[in-house]
Amino acid sequence: MIVRDFHKLKDTDKAVSDARWTSVRMLLADDGMGFSFHITTLQAGSEHTFHYKHHFESVYCISGKGSITDLASGETFQIRPGVMYALDQHDHHTLRAEEELVMACCFNPPVTGTEVHREDGSYAPVAELAD
Amino acid sequence: MIVRDFHKLKDTDKAVSDARWTSVRMLLADDGMGFSFHITTLQAGSEHTFHYKHHFESVYCISGKGSITDLASGETFQIRPGVMYALDQHDHHTLRAEEELVMACCFNPPVTGTEVHREDGSYAPVAELAD
Repeated sequence: MIVRDFHKLKDTDKAVSDARWTSVRMLLADDGMGFSFHITTLQAGSEHTFHYKHHFESVYCISGKGSITDLASGETFQIRPGVMYALDQHDHHTLRAEEELVMACCFNPPVTGTEVHREDGSYAPVAELAD
Repeated sequence: MIVRDFHKLKDTDKAVSDARWTSVRMLLADDGMGFSFHITTLQAGSEHTFHYKHHFESVYCISGKGSITDLASGETFQIRPGVMYALDQHDHHTLRAEEELVMACCFNPPVTGTEVHREDGSYAPVAELAD
């Protein structure tokens, strides 16, 4: 059994930051669960465009207020506590935090922890990371 | 892109209840994400023994207060907001809710939605469900 505390991990190298967001990696590929699990905090007023071409991701809003736009359809959905979106089509999307958003995220395949967002908003596929 | 709201699903057949807990299935096997994602609420004062012999599960505490005991080692860990446990060894465990616990749960393989806890605290493996 693995037991971990967000409040401890957030001050370690398990907290990965980029422009106006921080993601605490609670579970990664080497934990052997077959998915990774992150608590991601997006700063109030920030906007992010991501495109996980090689991963499925689900994102559940724990707190905050914002919106997500599906860039293929142009549709926008409100993000509030209790709302989840799932990128089942590897959807290219823009996320906006009106207030600070705290999100519980699951990735399949699991993130290894070394990924950074590439220029196209994606993480590299596992095979490329292994190169 | 799938977008769902816990506050709407909790009044539908996506909310599965058993003795003193309710699990809202936000994502299930047929969503094709490769994992399922549930928001599970355990009543204050309740105690639950589970043994997912055929699934990996991670559980992140959103709110509430309780504890988990690993029945193999006898160790007990406090559950507070921000604490996650992951049953990477299919660990047989007892969960206690001192206050109402709200937990974000990921299952691999994904739950299909029809599972009930069997007498041994497990869910049936996918192959048996298909029988």
